[in-house]
Amino acid sequence: MKICRFRKNIEIQIGIVEGDEIWVCDENLQKTNELCYFSEIELLPAAAPSKIVCVGRNYAEHAKELGNEVPSEPLLFLKAPSAIIGNGSSIVIPPQSAQVEHEGELAVIIGRDCKNLKDYEDPLDFVFGFTCMNDVTARDVQKNDVQFTRGKSFDTFCPIGPFIETSLDVSDIHVVTIVNKIIKQDGRTSQMVFTVPFLIRYISRQMTLKEGDVIATGTPTGVSKLNPGDVCEVMIEGIGTLTNKVV
Amino acid sequence: MKICRFRKNIEIQIGIVEGDEIWVCDENLQKTNELCYFSEIELLPAAAPSKIVCVGRNYAEHAKELGNEVPSEPLLFLKAPSAIIGNGSSIVIPPQSAQVEHEGELAVIIGRDCKNLKDYEDPLDFVFGFTCMNDVTARDVQKNDVQFTRGKSFDTFCPIGPFIETSLDVSDIHVVTIVNKIIKQDGRTSQMVFTVPFLIRYISRQMTLKEGDVIATGTPTGVSKLNPGDVCEVMIEGIGTLTNKVV
Repeated sequence: MKICRFRKNIEIQIGIVEGDEIWVCDENLQKTNELCYFSEIELLPAAAPSKIVCVGRNYAEHAKELGNEVPSEPLLFLKAPSAIIGNGSSIVIPPQSAQVEHEGELAVIIGRDCKNLKDYEDPLDFVFGFTCMNDVTARDVQKNDVQFTRGKSFDTFCPIGPFIETSLDVSDIHVVTIVNKIIKQDGRTSQMVFTVPFLIRYISRQMTLKEGDVIATGTPTGVSKLNPGDVCEVMIEGIGTLTNKVV
Repeated sequence: MKICRFRKNIEIQIGIVEGDEIWVCDENLQKTNELCYFSEIELLPAAAPSKIVCVGRNYAEHAKELGNEVPSEPLLFLKAPSAIIGNGSSIVIPPQSAQVEHEGELAVIIGRDCKNLKDYEDPLDFVFGFTCMNDVTARDVQKNDVQFTRGKSFDTFCPIGPFIETSLDVSDIHVVTIVNKIIKQDGRTSQMVFTVPFLIRYISRQMTLKEGDVIATGTPTGVSKLNPGDVCEVMIEGIGTLTNKVV
């Protein structure tokens, strides 16, 4: 099932996407009788999380391309929610950086609060769905600060969407990032150092994950510089394509 | 004016604190006729921010005690909002750490969204008020990860409160942290490397600050280990005392 967040008039709503149609949902994610079309609505970013937990160096080849070792435990950092934009909005290059790069990633949207998941609990039971995310990074600022926060939290540095897919086996799917129709990153989730269930359980043991929170699961090798005018697409098998222009 | 957030029955409300009395406010922070007493309400953490932006190494003596240089620009990192607790709640030492430390800090609560503040704009016009915060830190985890996120984002690692003071000159006030009645940190905000107005303007140029967001302005020298049973107080002149037990 493909879920979207959208605004019609002033109200923010949740809908089920079927082709060109959006069925408005009630709070239990059941279809109502109300039907909308994309031309009538403003599509919103797929998530409105209380926090975005990102995992660094979760693909060995990407760690290597930046001269880093693969960590023995997941390397966590946070991205500011104020950086979120939706599909079709523009990534704005800030004056602070001369090296803004794309990082296409599979994002997990948490479905209900979870803390200290036990070994016998299935982390996937706590997932609402999956979507595409671009963990846009000012590489020069990131290197200079050592702390990743600032280089990854400029406004517009977190495109997310377009839709949330609620039923998907993410153990071995294709994650591709394309700039101006040229494939730059081309990985499979089976290459992750730490799997999606492992990450959810691990993070839940460090901090409570709230309903709606986002986990960005790391980026495959092939990051490259974005320039004004570029069009960057993050395409994930079974989810769709997140497209953003760079300005 | 001292502001608190509280829950009475199930409703979350804002009140003006006058001695033992809490006057319930409307959305414009005007007193209504409704009066409560502390015995009738549950005091909530002073803030419910979309993000907590922290400034590292903003007191030269504290940077030195941890073997770090004073940065040439503010060093920013984020703390997970899920770590927030209020006055009187307990700081829980997680199994991952053998070295949890207090960091008493002045916290700024943003009053309205601000982005890219101009040189002629007064950052203090965007402040709702000030409160006490304890930037509790698992020092061993922080050092191990290099990224500060995990060591500072365990649940209960962000005590904040008890009240927000809306009218206060914070250019030279006393910030004291006390453990079991012994003064551990004793600084003045005039010792900050970057002043409060400088920090607000600087951060607004890196990421949009939203209404309710928190800026933690850094900690003076004197951090020390917290042990189960300890009582930790952050006392700031003109604001009050934030008290939390350690378990």
